[in-house]
Amino acid sequence: MDFLKDLKFDDKGLIPAVVQDATNGEILMVAYMNDQAVKQTIESGLVTLWSRSRQKYWVKGESSGHTQTVKEVFYDCDGDTLLIKVEQKVAACHEGYRSCFFRKVENGVGKIIAKPLFDPKKTYDK
Amino acid sequence: MDFLKDLKFDDKGLIPAVVQDATNGEILMVAYMNDQAVKQTIESGLVTLWSRSRQKYWVKGESSGHTQTVKEVFYDCDGDTLLIKVEQKVAACHEGYRSCFFRKVENGVGKIIAKPLFDPKKTYDK
Repeated sequence: MDFLKDLKFDDKGLIPAVVQDATNGEILMVAYMNDQAVKQTIESGLVTLWSRSRQKYWVKGESSGHTQTVKEVFYDCDGDTLLIKVEQKVAACHEGYRSCFFRKVENGVGKIIAKPLFDPKKTYDK
Repeated sequence: MDFLKDLKFDDKGLIPAVVQDATNGEILMVAYMNDQAVKQTIESGLVTLWSRSRQKYWVKGESSGHTQTVKEVFYDCDGDTLLIKVEQKVAACHEGYRSCFFRKVENGVGKIIAKPLFDPKKTYDK
């Protein structure tokens, strides 16, 4: 994991990761990793995050089954952002949408421009 | 700019913006905006950033001419990340590459996988 020395983690020890659908280029989400989550993501081949709100590691999709299989990993010129191309199962967003970016700004207002692929209540209240 | 109330800026008053090529879906860069930079980006139609290192606004491409014309703006479920689809002139990266994500992790090592489109020395030392 020689490349880890090129990465710059912020004052909380985190780095943002842009997660992109490897198939169609859609941006699925942006989440945060610490150095252990980066290592685990690459070693396991499943996107693993550090939850800032829950202060714990979690394999993305561990409760919903909507995992993200790592295809390619890139990092930017400043070493302060990761780009992870993945194969997404079902949907990335906990609100049921394929992508977390389901609101588009139109005339200054956020409009929902996608349809949910699953019902969060049914998926998470099992 | 009603959607601004949906956005969550961090403790420094910033929000990350993923900038994506509207034509081919390539991720060009991730940069940071404060609320004024978000407004200015939408009103002017040119990506405008808040430089954390220089503590000033800058229109992306103002010195190089490599501007980013805004095509579409999205934000995520948590309201803490923007996605801006743009028309990129020449290249986004100050190191001369089309995308800032020109390093790919291969067997744990960062490898340059792109060719620069311009010479930064010639572009910025004018």
